[in-house]
Amino acid sequence: MEKIVLGIDPGIATTGFGVVRIEPSGKVSFVDCGQIRTNKQNSISQRLAIIVESLRQLIEKYHPELVGIESLFFARNISTAMVVAEARGAILSVLAEYNLPVVEHTPLQVKQSLTGYGKADKQQVLKMIKSILHIEALPGPDDISDALAIAVCTAFHKQVSTQVLK
Amino acid sequence: MEKIVLGIDPGIATTGFGVVRIEPSGKVSFVDCGQIRTNKQNSISQRLAIIVESLRQLIEKYHPELVGIESLFFARNISTAMVVAEARGAILSVLAEYNLPVVEHTPLQVKQSLTGYGKADKQQVLKMIKSILHIEALPGPDDISDALAIAVCTAFHKQVSTQVLK
Repeated sequence: MEKIVLGIDPGIATTGFGVVRIEPSGKVSFVDCGQIRTNKQNSISQRLAIIVESLRQLIEKYHPELVGIESLFFARNISTAMVVAEARGAILSVLAEYNLPVVEHTPLQVKQSLTGYGKADKQQVLKMIKSILHIEALPGPDDISDALAIAVCTAFHKQVSTQVLK
Repeated sequence: MEKIVLGIDPGIATTGFGVVRIEPSGKVSFVDCGQIRTNKQNSISQRLAIIVESLRQLIEKYHPELVGIESLFFARNISTAMVVAEARGAILSVLAEYNLPVVEHTPLQVKQSLTGYGKADKQQVLKMIKSILHIEALPGPDDISDALAIAVCTAFHKQVSTQVLK
């Protein structure tokens, strides 16, 4: 049976998402990707509510079985990191509402999983995503390609877990 | 008309809440206070979902018109602060869902508003809350008294705003 995996790169201004499918053969293929955007003229709580509402729409459209999300990160800019954590919190509470299993990955784990090398540069990661998903081009914004990378990494993780459990 | 104000001190293990009423006379009186507790054996997303669910129950029980919450704080322990930010994010998204206006206060603003002195110590703040709300004793945990202090401070803020707007 096919399984849908959703990858999320949380942020308050834009939250990237990537949707992939694990075919019965084990092949991982592209389904969708994009950005949830919020208006900086709105309050933080209104912006979080927009992220949550859009996420619910995505879940109800694609019915993912598994969700991957970037781990809490400790940026040099703490106030940015704190606002990302707020977006992550709102997102995680919705995922739990739908009883969706969540796998967290650090950027290092994503790179390691996709290229075999934790210090791979952005271009190497992009090349691997395009190669794995058989797509020619990726949309510009970083958080979209990051979310797709997380989705692919989560799909691989799922297959590995399944193999281990069998 | 009476107005209900909810104060929240967010956290992942415990989220304190305080509920006060602004009487038609302007007097602020005590309604309820307590803690939302989560089990550390659950995942962060499950714990956030419990906080969100309990918050919805509180909102539907008391129908607050206004909510006060502690501002994002920058603790020395960044990983603690990030997890508090996740709880805050989940809480703020629910408040926006109910279209509830949210007022944020720093701990300094709360102290200033209650005691007239931003560097007041905990005992002075507790004494003022008990005096304002005419209650003999406050429940032990800090986040409950902090949440009540935020609720009172938000109620004062509301009255000041109303006076200014008139």
